[in-house]
Amino acid sequence: MSPSKAIDLSHHLSELSRSRIPSPLKDILKYMNEPGMISLAGGLPHPSLFPFSQVNAQIYAPDADLQSDDAASSPINIHVPKHASSSQTNTLSAALQYGSSYGSSTLSSFIREFTARVMTPGYSDFEILLNSGNTDAWNKVVNILCEFGDYILVEEHTYPSSQAVWAPMGCRGVPVPIDKDGLVPEALEAVLENWNETHPGVKRPHLLYTVPVGQNPTSATLSPERKKAVYDICVVYDVIICEDDPYYFLSFPPYVLPAQRQSLRKNALIDGLIPTFLSLDVQGRVIRLDTFSKTLGPGNRLGYFVCNPLFTERLLRATEVTTQAPSGWSQALVEELLLSWGQGGFLRWMVGLRDSYTARRDWMCDIIAENFDVLLSPEGIVDDVVAVRKSHGSTKDAVPFFSFSFPRGGMFLWIKIYLSNNVAYQDMKVANASSSDSTVTAMWTEAFWMDLIKEKVLLTPGSYYTPIVGMGKRMPQEPGVTFFRLAFSFESREEMKLGIERMTKVFERWWPVM
Amino acid sequence: MSPSKAIDLSHHLSELSRSRIPSPLKDILKYMNEPGMISLAGGLPHPSLFPFSQVNAQIYAPDADLQSDDAASSPINIHVPKHASSSQTNTLSAALQYGSSYGSSTLSSFIREFTARVMTPGYSDFEILLNSGNTDAWNKVVNILCEFGDYILVEEHTYPSSQAVWAPMGCRGVPVPIDKDGLVPEALEAVLENWNETHPGVKRPHLLYTVPVGQNPTSATLSPERKKAVYDICVVYDVIICEDDPYYFLSFPPYVLPAQRQSLRKNALIDGLIPTFLSLDVQGRVIRLDTFSKTLGPGNRLGYFVCNPLFTERLLRATEVTTQAPSGWSQALVEELLLSWGQGGFLRWMVGLRDSYTARRDWMCDIIAENFDVLLSPEGIVDDVVAVRKSHGSTKDAVPFFSFSFPRGGMFLWIKIYLSNNVAYQDMKVANASSSDSTVTAMWTEAFWMDLIKEKVLLTPGSYYTPIVGMGKRMPQEPGVTFFRLAFSFESREEMKLGIERMTKVFERWWPVM
Repeated sequence: MSPSKAIDLSHHLSELSRSRIPSPLKDILKYMNEPGMISLAGGLPHPSLFPFSQVNAQIYAPDADLQSDDAASSPINIHVPKHASSSQTNTLSAALQYGSSYGSSTLSSFIREFTARVMTPGYSDFEILLNSGNTDAWNKVVNILCEFGDYILVEEHTYPSSQAVWAPMGCRGVPVPIDKDGLVPEALEAVLENWNETHPGVKRPHLLYTVPVGQNPTSATLSPERKKAVYDICVVYDVIICEDDPYYFLSFPPYVLPAQRQSLRKNALIDGLIPTFLSLDVQGRVIRLDTFSKTLGPGNRLGYFVCNPLFTERLLRATEVTTQAPSGWSQALVEELLLSWGQGGFLRWMVGLRDSYTARRDWMCDIIAENFDVLLSPEGIVDDVVAVRKSHGSTKDAVPFFSFSFPRGGMFLWIKIYLSNNVAYQDMKVANASSSDSTVTAMWTEAFWMDLIKEKVLLTPGSYYTPIVGMGKRMPQEPGVTFFRLAFSFESREEMKLGIERMTKVFERWWPVM
Repeated sequence: MSPSKAIDLSHHLSELSRSRIPSPLKDILKYMNEPGMISLAGGLPHPSLFPFSQVNAQIYAPDADLQSDDAASSPINIHVPKHASSSQTNTLSAALQYGSSYGSSTLSSFIREFTARVMTPGYSDFEILLNSGNTDAWNKVVNILCEFGDYILVEEHTYPSSQAVWAPMGCRGVPVPIDKDGLVPEALEAVLENWNETHPGVKRPHLLYTVPVGQNPTSATLSPERKKAVYDICVVYDVIICEDDPYYFLSFPPYVLPAQRQSLRKNALIDGLIPTFLSLDVQGRVIRLDTFSKTLGPGNRLGYFVCNPLFTERLLRATEVTTQAPSGWSQALVEELLLSWGQGGFLRWMVGLRDSYTARRDWMCDIIAENFDVLLSPEGIVDDVVAVRKSHGSTKDAVPFFSFSFPRGGMFLWIKIYLSNNVAYQDMKVANASSSDSTVTAMWTEAFWMDLIKEKVLLTPGSYYTPIVGMGKRMPQEPGVTFFRLAFSFESREEMKLGIERMTKVFERWWPVM
């Protein structure tokens, strides 16, 4: 059975979005393309007056070994001339001109084919709309769906910039617990099921913001079973899912210790890919945010929505009065790159990326295993493994420093530090008896972070990712535990090693051996 | 006496803008740059994993003769490598990475120097902030200054996309009359002075949106005297001026008939430049929107704010959660271009542009003068000249078809058609006796436009530019006159000639000789 069309979800649109009217210039466009028409209507600058006459770029082959320096030795040339030659459709005169807010149709077609093939949307009339990257995209989603003061479902540790969009609108996050397998469906259901009791008279949240693969900051990757469960709950409670999925192709095989690791572990990409929310979506209630930021570079400021036609039309209206269109340079150069690579080449590029970031994940995990003893989690500590002081002997009674999961995707390792056995923490509690446990935990965290900085290693405090649950109000934090995020995406292996050695020193100092 | 600093204008900020908080990641940035720091904090993709290894562009010399085909024969090469060589500061690794929302500091410095030199701001602490073009910019200005339902001062014929930003917010335009010399200061003053009587209990408008040079659609250029008067009124009534000035450098010498025209008319650029609102601004109440769209190509999606530090800071907060930064490609390529040209070269490029668009203005005016008899305005018709049927004889009793002003800037010629002597109009009035004069004028205009389209010439109806004065409500139009906009920016001289000949045919058909 072929998939059916999206259902009518127009009741989700914000008043602002409903009030947007198409530009009257659309009527003009209709006539402009009539054969023989002389148009004195458009206010376009003349392309002979653009100062660029051509641009050439060198790109890597899609299966270049990105971990080797040789990649640079075999570049492919792509070329965008000012005016069209016989075979060329992408020209600088077009790229530098005012463009449609839809963006390049060639690029959109390429993306549409890629999406149909790899993301397999569950309904038939999905559409693609280019945008200026996922921050821009999420802002536009909030713009078309949210009223001031709305509640928005978010992960219990969530991406700060996503909150910065809606917090000034007086919106509030409704945190949903996550663990290493992502959002907990039962917890989501409980929030929605009990909403009228917990929030009498208040509109139930109708938008879920989630980063399902390699979540920022926790690296949680939502399992297929949970994804299905979350989708089904959103159908029951009529919730729109915004699937912000920048790390989709950075989905890694499980971490294994170096001794057990095969020297070459090249899995087929498709094996590691988890079905998207979009693929489960038979109703058109998923707005998928895809971006080239993590795959071709954030500076492109180029991404795209995949969603139902009603939403793309309203997102287009929002685009016309804000960004107008992504940069013509970004569109032209990414288009030439992708046409040069082809569909298969783009996928092979993703394999290389995945392998590179898998290697980086392995570096970081290996280095942690070299500096700490890494144990299976004891009862009551829910993450995968616990790091304790390197003992070179029995670790049976070791005090847990922190627990973490070996990342299965993304760019981050998320550690949860346990303070109950920490002497400094206990001393702080005594010295600040009138303060709450959360306050003392925050004090401890700040002091510990400052000590890391003194030791010249910078981590991101987990508190940055705490949901905003009211104007200037954060979700209360569990006392006695604290979080940090470590990125394995950027530093070299040597720097990573040095950084984690410094971090180890600080841990060992803060848990002195009695 | 050196200029003083901007005054405190924080009371103009919208509640949304006041509520925006800086990203906590700012704290991270502070420590990231400490010498010796190993940062595991930033979530940046590794630049070795960006697929572009270098880009080369060819650009014209700043004083290339843009009206000749030879321009293409002497391109200059600019080059952006993946990683920095000795002298290069602009690299693809940086351009393709997440960038500061401030944008490139080198590019911003170039622009700052250019602004200080050419725009001569009237206060000392003005700042530059890059944006993604003037549509994006105006959206952000509305975002930081306007509440839902605010009244905004606009020109009596105003740019439609600028209205499309605020109309869905329930904001309303307050039209201020303009003629060929731009906004009428007395009319602006009357609106503000009488506000409390005309709108009791309603907040007085505190934002003026204006395109002061080569206004879209009327090509009006605000005279220096009027500019000063408008500024002074805005000081008295505490109004922020948004100076949207994309056509600033397209400021032309007066039109003269071909017989009187010198074969070469190369004025010094600076002679033709009118002082900006920014140059009059001793308080920091002007937000100037500058863009590269008309000078280096709209597809760059690159422009910049010039305004006081309070406003740039709030605009930056709005940028962080929307566009993040302009495309790295646009920034890198425009930066290389401008560094290659230098400050003087950029100005010389403007001279070439101005001369090219002056020539285009002359083409269109010449062609109109060839197809119509062009007379000084009779009493009661306020525009410069009146076009009547080409008579090859006495034009004394000729019926006016339309009046217009020879554009002194921009890309458009704006015609005002007089219907009182039109038989079809009179017949329509009789046939639709129960309709208002405005309705009949709109009917006539639609029929006339359709006839132009049938004749294969497309103009833009003037009604597109009518201010929105309420939800779904336009400013009532003067009956018996109607407007069209003709662009001289894009079509070739031959196409322009053909188009205006077709238009002439339609005029002559609609005013049959009795």
